[in-house]
Amino acid sequence: MNKSTSPTDSTSLKDPCLQELQKLLGERLSMSNSVREQHGRDESFHASAPPEAVAFVENNEEVAEIVRICVQHQKPIIPFGTGTSLEGHVAALHGGVCLDVSGMNKVLEVNENDLDCRVQAGVTRKQLNQHLRNSGLFFPIDPGADASLGGMTATRASGTNAVRYGTMRENVLGLTVVTADGRIIRTGTRARKSSAGYDLTRLFVGSEGTLGIITEIQLRLYGVPEAISAAVCSFETMEGAVNTTISTIQMGIPVARIELLDEVQVDAINRYSDFDYALKPTLFFEFHGTEAWVQEQAEMVKEISTEEGGSDFQWSTQEQEKQKLWEARHNAYYAGLALRPGSKGWATDVCVPISRLADCILETRSDIEESKLTVPLVGHVGDGNFHLLFLIDPENEEEELKLYQPLNDRLVERALRMGGTCTGEHGIGSGKIKYMEAEHGDSLDLMRQIKQAFDPDNLMNPGKMLPA
Amino acid sequence: MNKSTSPTDSTSLKDPCLQELQKLLGERLSMSNSVREQHGRDESFHASAPPEAVAFVENNEEVAEIVRICVQHQKPIIPFGTGTSLEGHVAALHGGVCLDVSGMNKVLEVNENDLDCRVQAGVTRKQLNQHLRNSGLFFPIDPGADASLGGMTATRASGTNAVRYGTMRENVLGLTVVTADGRIIRTGTRARKSSAGYDLTRLFVGSEGTLGIITEIQLRLYGVPEAISAAVCSFETMEGAVNTTISTIQMGIPVARIELLDEVQVDAINRYSDFDYALKPTLFFEFHGTEAWVQEQAEMVKEISTEEGGSDFQWSTQEQEKQKLWEARHNAYYAGLALRPGSKGWATDVCVPISRLADCILETRSDIEESKLTVPLVGHVGDGNFHLLFLIDPENEEEELKLYQPLNDRLVERALRMGGTCTGEHGIGSGKIKYMEAEHGDSLDLMRQIKQAFDPDNLMNPGKMLPA
Repeated sequence: MNKSTSPTDSTSLKDPCLQELQKLLGERLSMSNSVREQHGRDESFHASAPPEAVAFVENNEEVAEIVRICVQHQKPIIPFGTGTSLEGHVAALHGGVCLDVSGMNKVLEVNENDLDCRVQAGVTRKQLNQHLRNSGLFFPIDPGADASLGGMTATRASGTNAVRYGTMRENVLGLTVVTADGRIIRTGTRARKSSAGYDLTRLFVGSEGTLGIITEIQLRLYGVPEAISAAVCSFETMEGAVNTTISTIQMGIPVARIELLDEVQVDAINRYSDFDYALKPTLFFEFHGTEAWVQEQAEMVKEISTEEGGSDFQWSTQEQEKQKLWEARHNAYYAGLALRPGSKGWATDVCVPISRLADCILETRSDIEESKLTVPLVGHVGDGNFHLLFLIDPENEEEELKLYQPLNDRLVERALRMGGTCTGEHGIGSGKIKYMEAEHGDSLDLMRQIKQAFDPDNLMNPGKMLPA
Repeated sequence: MNKSTSPTDSTSLKDPCLQELQKLLGERLSMSNSVREQHGRDESFHASAPPEAVAFVENNEEVAEIVRICVQHQKPIIPFGTGTSLEGHVAALHGGVCLDVSGMNKVLEVNENDLDCRVQAGVTRKQLNQHLRNSGLFFPIDPGADASLGGMTATRASGTNAVRYGTMRENVLGLTVVTADGRIIRTGTRARKSSAGYDLTRLFVGSEGTLGIITEIQLRLYGVPEAISAAVCSFETMEGAVNTTISTIQMGIPVARIELLDEVQVDAINRYSDFDYALKPTLFFEFHGTEAWVQEQAEMVKEISTEEGGSDFQWSTQEQEKQKLWEARHNAYYAGLALRPGSKGWATDVCVPISRLADCILETRSDIEESKLTVPLVGHVGDGNFHLLFLIDPENEEEELKLYQPLNDRLVERALRMGGTCTGEHGIGSGKIKYMEAEHGDSLDLMRQIKQAFDPDNLMNPGKMLPA
């Protein structure tokens, strides 16, 4: 470390709060420019706002002590997992200390009989599944990035498997949280259901670090299915693809994944991964179950697809083919970026009732076409959730944001008008804070009351989620 | 109505709050003793505490106006649906006005394509399913009683189908709530998932009227399965029955119902409904799906049962046989009461991690045997949830409660020790308030902070859920 930016003796530090933290953490408090810069931004286009220092924490007690010290000095605290959020969640907008939990990466317990586990907040989803590889169990929530489970909890993440297994909302059984007064509390129990008191667990899930620091998570797990099959099908029209989705959900076919790619995204994937999918709206499916049940599901969906003008319904239980197919889907983000070499991605998402999905996507596509911009679209359409990827030229960022921001505004306005939400899974951070009033109306006051009750000094990730 | 107990001209009313309410509601404000008495107790043994008056409300605006009037006069407000709760939820422990929502019984909208609907709080679950009968959709949550959906939301109810379809927590998409300051707010959207802000919906689900009055509920619906089959199987040992449950869940077999009856409950059902089930721990199953898939599920469960010492695995897709079987299960409560003619029922429930279910049930059974009392046991065992039915002689209630209360205390202590909760689905009311501290520890303070923020005058169903 460079001594001028990362003093290791507390005498060179003028800030009394940072002095105290350094006494507690020693080398695990970093003031280096590069570390601060890296912790001041996520994967999105949002401008970096580096914290004053980064604390690399190791356990609950340390987090609690840091919170007490910061509160005493009225210093903001911003939790940080892997930095893969998408709406500026980790930017230190009001200065303060970044609390990096990536070192809290132990899987604390796996209860195979109960299909649950307890992890520290810094454990990533891939790390957890690696840990579980010989148990016959897996954790299904897959937002794309190898995010920390603390961050996924804090942003109420979901992703491709949510249509079958739910989101973090449904899969967190309980939490350990350090509150803004520096106490370590536990919410929930290991019981699958409870009617005992307010649902604090669900209140912290999706709270984006604004109510307290999530340090441990009790998670549901699932048995690895006996059989998995994957399928792909292209459609003449967007309506055909969306109607296939609607019918599949209505018939109660428990599809594990149902992903929509529009023509632009299919083109991007073909170029990036050397595929030759038809340049048409395309659905990717995955089915989980027994051999016979997986086959029956695929056949039912094939029948629906055919009725809706789908062609080339290809399905496979072969590991290699499935992997190839899902690799293409997983690379959608990078394939999209490659449509405009050198660009930075701005991923936005909305979620609408499934009956409005075709309308919402078609209006959005025609809005994009009028703008003459290249914007790929992918969706977790079984949930009514879809994403746009705006490709920003970093050399000309300010001007470009002015082009894309109105598209995003209209996208959100459209989703709200159709009974949906301004974000299905990315969260609010600072990027979508301006839509909170339109979405929530008076109930925003209740959110403010909770924030005021739990964090009266507004030190927990200030400037996020709730408009000032 | 009797004029002396139910004055219709406001001049005869001395209480200024009731005067104002009567001006607003006319005949729909009742002070009759019988109406008050009926609204001061639920289906449990808990003593009646009649409200000062009962307001039969008709719409959101009226509820808001009543709340504003009551708050102005610092008069408590207790919401009431069908009065089928089990832990004294509706007793007017601090006086005040009962707000009866049973007249708010309109199904406001059914969105067949989205598998959701919006109902007023007084709609009962059977009424909703009757309304849906030609739509191909149904609402699966079944707590036994024909409860109001407002009450089911307020107590986070679940029941037999929860193992497949979740509880009210998973099935409420959004709410209309009248807050303690008399505002009508809406939480949630019609989108299936959202990462936009604190989860107010889940906060109100299970809040038992202590944070506001739930007046409308947006609910998830499901397609009626193509095929339903039911099965019954008896076991030599309780462990065999519970291990069958654990393996079924672990294998991911999406059983729709898996209900355990112990020997005492089987005996009660045989006597009550003229069945001849073996006097052994018995599992009742139900499977939903396609014809082929239902058959495959039943065969897998049969195989597991046989390995665990199950015998006489009988399964049927015949409507008549299924109905007979589930009628027996649904009559379990009355069959239990008939074991001691003239008795009143005190139903208690706990929920534990499924790996501890056998231990918890066996310890509980042996505790009951030592007490020499007759106590039937039934369980929604796929969730780790089971119930005891205490049979109280109303002629000797005080003495009898002294016999059963220690059994209940030990049951709860046992469930908490095993990582469970003091109630899986009945709620806290006043009956389980004394266990809140043991279950929640410091996180109880956060619940108190929420209560204080939302209801600073403690007028919303006071004396419930949170210990003073």
